[in-house]
Amino acid sequence: MAVFPNSEYMERLIKTKERMAQEGIDVLLVTDPANMNYLSGYDAWSFYVHQLLIIFIDEDQPYWIGRGQDRNAALHTTWLDQEHLYAYSDDYVQSEVKHPMDYVSDFIKAKKRDKATIGAEFDAYYFSAKNYIQLTKNLPNATFKDATNLVNWIRIIKSDKEIEFIKKAGKIAEKAMQAAFDNIEVGVKQSDAVAAIAHTQIAGTDDFGGDYPAIVPLLPTGEKTSACHLTWTDDTFKQGDPVIIELAGCYQRYHSPLARTIILGIPDEKTQYIADVVIEGINTTLQSIKPGITCEEVELTWRKVIEKSGIKKEHRIGYSMGLNYPPDWGEHTASLRPGDKTVLQPNMTFHMIPGIWLDNMGVEISESFVVTESGCEILAEFPRELLVKPNIRLA
Amino acid sequence: MAVFPNSEYMERLIKTKERMAQEGIDVLLVTDPANMNYLSGYDAWSFYVHQLLIIFIDEDQPYWIGRGQDRNAALHTTWLDQEHLYAYSDDYVQSEVKHPMDYVSDFIKAKKRDKATIGAEFDAYYFSAKNYIQLTKNLPNATFKDATNLVNWIRIIKSDKEIEFIKKAGKIAEKAMQAAFDNIEVGVKQSDAVAAIAHTQIAGTDDFGGDYPAIVPLLPTGEKTSACHLTWTDDTFKQGDPVIIELAGCYQRYHSPLARTIILGIPDEKTQYIADVVIEGINTTLQSIKPGITCEEVELTWRKVIEKSGIKKEHRIGYSMGLNYPPDWGEHTASLRPGDKTVLQPNMTFHMIPGIWLDNMGVEISESFVVTESGCEILAEFPRELLVKPNIRLA
Repeated sequence: MAVFPNSEYMERLIKTKERMAQEGIDVLLVTDPANMNYLSGYDAWSFYVHQLLIIFIDEDQPYWIGRGQDRNAALHTTWLDQEHLYAYSDDYVQSEVKHPMDYVSDFIKAKKRDKATIGAEFDAYYFSAKNYIQLTKNLPNATFKDATNLVNWIRIIKSDKEIEFIKKAGKIAEKAMQAAFDNIEVGVKQSDAVAAIAHTQIAGTDDFGGDYPAIVPLLPTGEKTSACHLTWTDDTFKQGDPVIIELAGCYQRYHSPLARTIILGIPDEKTQYIADVVIEGINTTLQSIKPGITCEEVELTWRKVIEKSGIKKEHRIGYSMGLNYPPDWGEHTASLRPGDKTVLQPNMTFHMIPGIWLDNMGVEISESFVVTESGCEILAEFPRELLVKPNIRLA
Repeated sequence: MAVFPNSEYMERLIKTKERMAQEGIDVLLVTDPANMNYLSGYDAWSFYVHQLLIIFIDEDQPYWIGRGQDRNAALHTTWLDQEHLYAYSDDYVQSEVKHPMDYVSDFIKAKKRDKATIGAEFDAYYFSAKNYIQLTKNLPNATFKDATNLVNWIRIIKSDKEIEFIKKAGKIAEKAMQAAFDNIEVGVKQSDAVAAIAHTQIAGTDDFGGDYPAIVPLLPTGEKTSACHLTWTDDTFKQGDPVIIELAGCYQRYHSPLARTIILGIPDEKTQYIADVVIEGINTTLQSIKPGITCEEVELTWRKVIEKSGIKKEHRIGYSMGLNYPPDWGEHTASLRPGDKTVLQPNMTFHMIPGIWLDNMGVEISESFVVTESGCEILAEFPRELLVKPNIRLA
């Protein structure tokens, strides 16, 4: 059973076919696990082997092609009928002799579409160079076209039911950040604190359980707060340590990310100043958000606040997010940065994370929000401040 | 600071260059995060953007190229000096205008190696078709060669220090499976049981903390045990449910996977029979393992046991594993299956998982082992049996 009503998958498929028609694509190969889930409901940790959906513009249902032992997962999680599930035998798996795209090529030939225009997600995770090389070699009469993000751009506007899922993820994010605040203490092992965070992420709330986020909790600590994507160690937290926590709540593969910075002591002036500027920037920027403005306008509002502070920030300050699988909860479509002219519309969801990383320290405070009819709504409510735990533990 | 002594990275690099020389490769692009870690120590959750190591056969150090905000992570986790860390600006990230491989191509041109033979991991995770297309377009005078698994085949034999790490991972796997057994109960939410498992995986033991495994706990339950790669839901376990748990302990990115099946009730005859056959197969096969035999000989021993049982098993029964990142802890080199003539050698490590999946049920019992001088040693000790929790809970 797929998670959404069939009508919702049909709408998504119709929109995908409209985009295919606009691009002149007859056959679309969908390898991004989030896009596979979006269109079929497929949900399993099998993206470590080659698998895909194939959408023929003139057929009603996509075909799922994957490994033999994963066909039952497609039966259990998709709305597709049995006749649309094709499985390759196990000797194609991580073999140096056979490649799953040979099977896919044979399938396309059998469907007599080997002269068609075939779209594929050239820059998606799990669509390897080898996939491309095998397909173009096996199907020399086909025309291949880059369809990176074709489905992602449809995903950018969420249905009300998707927003409901993301809000549930937001509730989990609140609890997980509280677990971080409660467990990050001088003398505690980083791994023990993250264990408590991960427990909360999966246990979820009394009303619903959590799913695995596409990124594990990030926990740069001490001087390593200069490096935003470091994970934890089993070192203990020390008096005075700054600790960055970036995490997400996840519900049925939908995310609500959140970042905060905790100081295990009294913050120094520089850290407090940076945090104050970031918070002012977030507040001012969130107030500016409404349908009709562009992503680059959002970033410009932020930049005007920060420019007068003397702090430099040369990265994008956010991105569209929602349904996803490892390694990223971002959707790879709209970014809050100069040059991005995507117009905000209701039911778009973003993670705004204007992190500041200097040579020996960093500060992250972020918010996830959904664009509403008149402004935006925060997805996880947690004190928007530099979190301070000044108490000194006696050994 | 990298995790291993510099001398160990040097040895790995020398072996890599030997393989490059054999293959006629002058420049090697290493994108697999496990291979990047293996050669440089690099360890951060930044593989969701394009990044790589470049190894020039005639230079002492690899170059790390990644996103600007991740350069500090390279400073903190690798043995490379600052001059070997190159970062692209943020406007290359998930952009439809610029691509990180354009930056890489410019780098190779600046190093005057644009006519060289360049090896790349064509079928590795995160080396996308777009990477290949941009590189071959930008460097038309270079010769590109598939170097998939070139470094993986070096990784297949572990150093003693790596074995020490994998054994620590085994200790964590034992604790995590115990947490599974203790928490999987009739009436308990699947998500609560997995929360307890994940807590244990990360908290590790009193002596050392755990790292994030490359795959989250898999938990097919009830009829869904027919589908091995399903994750949990927030449904509650029911009386009579079979539950498959596949998990790993992970220490400093090194894994020790383990699978068991729990029956929440009295096992039916069929399930017990399958489990008995699988256990007999594992016992017999493990006794046969020693240096000098091939992977296909290992599988043949298994197959002879199972053939007389009438149960069919058409998948590989195991694979080399160790250092890794999501989405897979397998190394993509040797598989225990017909045709694989890899000769077992001391300090190779495998996950033997002869799972049986039928239409409406499945049984998984697995063991991870290290090949020793005279046989093999199990990495995680846990009762090798169909686990039964027969007690009926009153509502």
